[in-house]
Amino acid sequence: MPTYTAPIKDTQFILHDVLQVSTQSIDGYADLEPEFTAAILEAAGALASDVVAPLNLPGDREGCRLENGVVHTPKGFKEAFDQIREGGWPGLDLPEEFGGQGMPYLVGTAVGEIFSGANQAFTMYQGLTHGAASAILAHGSEAQKQTYLPKMVSCEWTGTMNLTEPHCGTDLGLMRTKAEPQDDGSYKVTGQKIFISAGDHDMSQNVIHLVLAKIPGGPDGIKGVSLFIVPKFVVNEDGSLGERNAVSVGALEEKMGIHGNSTCVMNYDGATGFLIGEMHKGMRAMFVMMNEARLGVGMQGLAQAEAAYQNAVIYAKDRLQGRAVTGAQNPAGPADPLIVHPDIRRSLMEQKSFIEGARAFLLWGASLIDASHRAGDADAEGLVSLMTPVIKGFLTDKGFEACVLAQQIYGGHGYIEEWGMSQFVRDARIAQIYEGANGVQALDLVGRKLAQSGGKYVMAYFEMVKTFCKDHGDAEMADFVTPLKAASKDLQAAGMFFMQNGMKNPDAALAGSYDFMHLFGYVSLGLMWAKMAKAAQEALAVGTQDKTFYETKLATARFYMARQLPMTATLLKRIESGADPVMALDADAF
Amino acid sequence: MPTYTAPIKDTQFILHDVLQVSTQSIDGYADLEPEFTAAILEAAGALASDVVAPLNLPGDREGCRLENGVVHTPKGFKEAFDQIREGGWPGLDLPEEFGGQGMPYLVGTAVGEIFSGANQAFTMYQGLTHGAASAILAHGSEAQKQTYLPKMVSCEWTGTMNLTEPHCGTDLGLMRTKAEPQDDGSYKVTGQKIFISAGDHDMSQNVIHLVLAKIPGGPDGIKGVSLFIVPKFVVNEDGSLGERNAVSVGALEEKMGIHGNSTCVMNYDGATGFLIGEMHKGMRAMFVMMNEARLGVGMQGLAQAEAAYQNAVIYAKDRLQGRAVTGAQNPAGPADPLIVHPDIRRSLMEQKSFIEGARAFLLWGASLIDASHRAGDADAEGLVSLMTPVIKGFLTDKGFEACVLAQQIYGGHGYIEEWGMSQFVRDARIAQIYEGANGVQALDLVGRKLAQSGGKYVMAYFEMVKTFCKDHGDAEMADFVTPLKAASKDLQAAGMFFMQNGMKNPDAALAGSYDFMHLFGYVSLGLMWAKMAKAAQEALAVGTQDKTFYETKLATARFYMARQLPMTATLLKRIESGADPVMALDADAF
Repeated sequence: MPTYTAPIKDTQFILHDVLQVSTQSIDGYADLEPEFTAAILEAAGALASDVVAPLNLPGDREGCRLENGVVHTPKGFKEAFDQIREGGWPGLDLPEEFGGQGMPYLVGTAVGEIFSGANQAFTMYQGLTHGAASAILAHGSEAQKQTYLPKMVSCEWTGTMNLTEPHCGTDLGLMRTKAEPQDDGSYKVTGQKIFISAGDHDMSQNVIHLVLAKIPGGPDGIKGVSLFIVPKFVVNEDGSLGERNAVSVGALEEKMGIHGNSTCVMNYDGATGFLIGEMHKGMRAMFVMMNEARLGVGMQGLAQAEAAYQNAVIYAKDRLQGRAVTGAQNPAGPADPLIVHPDIRRSLMEQKSFIEGARAFLLWGASLIDASHRAGDADAEGLVSLMTPVIKGFLTDKGFEACVLAQQIYGGHGYIEEWGMSQFVRDARIAQIYEGANGVQALDLVGRKLAQSGGKYVMAYFEMVKTFCKDHGDAEMADFVTPLKAASKDLQAAGMFFMQNGMKNPDAALAGSYDFMHLFGYVSLGLMWAKMAKAAQEALAVGTQDKTFYETKLATARFYMARQLPMTATLLKRIESGADPVMALDADAF
Repeated sequence: MPTYTAPIKDTQFILHDVLQVSTQSIDGYADLEPEFTAAILEAAGALASDVVAPLNLPGDREGCRLENGVVHTPKGFKEAFDQIREGGWPGLDLPEEFGGQGMPYLVGTAVGEIFSGANQAFTMYQGLTHGAASAILAHGSEAQKQTYLPKMVSCEWTGTMNLTEPHCGTDLGLMRTKAEPQDDGSYKVTGQKIFISAGDHDMSQNVIHLVLAKIPGGPDGIKGVSLFIVPKFVVNEDGSLGERNAVSVGALEEKMGIHGNSTCVMNYDGATGFLIGEMHKGMRAMFVMMNEARLGVGMQGLAQAEAAYQNAVIYAKDRLQGRAVTGAQNPAGPADPLIVHPDIRRSLMEQKSFIEGARAFLLWGASLIDASHRAGDADAEGLVSLMTPVIKGFLTDKGFEACVLAQQIYGGHGYIEEWGMSQFVRDARIAQIYEGANGVQALDLVGRKLAQSGGKYVMAYFEMVKTFCKDHGDAEMADFVTPLKAASKDLQAAGMFFMQNGMKNPDAALAGSYDFMHLFGYVSLGLMWAKMAKAAQEALAVGTQDKTFYETKLATARFYMARQLPMTATLLKRIESGADPVMALDADAF
């Protein structure tokens, strides 16, 4: 069975050597000294390794089951969820006012990776709750906050997000679920929602559904969508649980992966709902949460890759097969371990260089969210808003690919479910799809974010890369800065191509949107690796007891620069070929 | 539920417009007139669509089950297998002497794609039998041929290949299964084999296992391996079935996909076996079949991509979501179909340009095998031997990616098993692993095939591309020939890099072996697309009633050249970075 170990040392390196968080003037960051974050990460890591990870494979096999309208989670989930609650993990970065620990989002993200890596399906129950609680926090009335948040912050009650309907996913304007106003100010919600993660289960007393629906008579399409709180059990004035609401599980979906999470068809049959935020402004309420939710999904891509990689390394060191081409490395044994073979190394280095670069990118993004929320930094908000589709799309695409690479190292055993590598691949796959399929992320990036505030944030991004390269023009950093410069030029050229052609023909930009999202991802990980290399050089220069750790960072950075970053040239070429090759055919010709 | 339609028109285009098979001086090719091959493909297509494909999704859900030592295949498999047998499909390209139809391997490959695309798990039962029959044909004694082949050609008896053991897959020298000689000339085979596809089932009277094992006292390692026939029921002299042999199914593997195929742990407990070919020359016997088997696996990658693509196209035309950025295309409806969106087009074009290019590459490879076997063309044999790891590795990697792309078009529905897109991805995944994992294909290509006969065949390949480019230097072909030339230069430069560096340091070549396999694949599909473009231009020039078909080929060729082929530059850069970035770390640093 696969194992999981929290990547504490790597996370600490990013937090302290690279981001130098405790020196940042963001509310709460001064507390984030290395010893403090280490203590948190170690506690999370222990729970993840000992309690959460061992449920991953069994949870995949057993799955959830629906019996008489009640969803049963896999064996052990309930007890593990109790431990998560007891540890206060769900409220780590939620306000103290509602029982949380009030820590920065950055800390929540670093810890989130650990639990997700240990067991994505399980961790989604608290993840969805976190998202729903954030929505209520941002848009709920004071009374709604008081009613729901204390229980949601502790995960005594869990939450869900209800957007998709059978005929509409991305295009929510097509939504049919309706909410009819009642005399008492509540609404009767009627309709069917699908793909509702953690839609129902046996681990909490109540489930608080956030449901998008249309109030009859409102504007057509997306402008007539409002957001409602629909509790499984209506909450009485005194906070006790009242009557069972008219919301039920129509079916559990049979999915490719995340079997331990209950993905429900939810039927609302005149269920009592409460408007949250303004009428017809439901999408605005949703969008506020989206940066965080999408960052969280990008994190899942990284987390599965990390878990798969750890097990691939174990297997590559353990499995004896063939001899090193340069001479036996394990002459006493019947064969050498897989890890001696250059192509196995190539695969492991691809995984490793992606994972560590992605983690830096993700945590940097999380720190920008903190800068925006906790320090009122509008530029940070603009920058992370620009990068969010990249973090979501690139990290989940590459995270999935990394899982496939890790599975491949197992050969035939990778295809057998009992080894667990298939599960990493199957679980990682969903992150490319939900919370806005990756094609939609690319559309958001190129069609919306690039031009935001007159292109201010993308210019700021380019400037930042340029400044870093200028500031580190020394020979020692040339191995990293030279390729980064070249890649960044490719990214700028692609942006220029869109500016010059997108106005005349929007298809010319959108045909290259997916490639641009990846191009942006490659450059961003390049920037992260250059920064990590710099931090490693500095640590080595002042002298360190852990030379190997920092030298490994430098070697991994070199690998990334030499073998991953050159991808930008091909992506630029694709983009510059414009709309014609993509749009040439009539639909009938497919 | 997904549907499947045989790609007859595309296959006919390759056979006749591109390869011009009926004009080739290969035994049996003169018969391959368009009407003749169309009749075969249509008959196969009808059976595939109506009988075989409808069992694909149910077969995945039901899987195989082992009860009291007997493997039961999913409902409907047995009846469908009867129809396959009745149609004479298993023996299509096997010798008439043993009841086959004696057609070229090329025809078998084109038909094989159809059945594989309809249902890979089901089609493997005959595929494995074909492989085992080919081994007996090539290496069996006359008596063995007479005993086994008539029943195997008809698939009354099916066959298996037993190579892998729990501790050894790629490195067969570690094998422990032993075969002890008996006084009557037979052997007692003892050991355990794993991952045995079609290892046992309820669809045939007998199963003929081909088993690699070591005769005690023979040479160590791979040089001491011999090949044995171990029938489930020993065959009496009169051809009737005799006693049940001491071979049994230890377990059925739970796999990521191909659930309809019984992947068995086979236990041999002193089972009666018969040496096939020479003692200790078992690997040689295996290797002869490997080109064909690996081509067949490459074909599976293509076949799953085709099936997934067809269903992605149906969904993209049917599903209404969002509006075209250039203005509504379906103004009467609530939204436009997905296919209007540039990024959906990008994805479909990636799939389409891969699939059609891959099919041309595969069928060209199959025609080279025919040239080798039926016309004694040693150069053709050398060339296909060089290209075989590319066909296997590149077509299965890209075929898997194409399935993932197709699944992505379905959004959330792609992740739900009932839509069937997950199955294409899960089934396609195995082809990257079995019959030599793709990393081993890359090793075979760079470590063995490139240098074969002093590099004669790779030089011939380069020469062939060069000649094609020279012969088609006209302006009309420039869109295709110019990018092909550039890509081919990248491939040559990579080959040169290996020559210059591989001798000093084999790791320098092997670190780039996987990239080289892909580089070779991209260039080969580029060559195929240039040839297809030429054929399309010729058809358009002489006038055709099917202008759209040929214009679509030209547009797809342009897409491939503009957006896929530029990948070669990045792959070359990776290769030229050599061994250092890949091999820098100590194993402990992972």
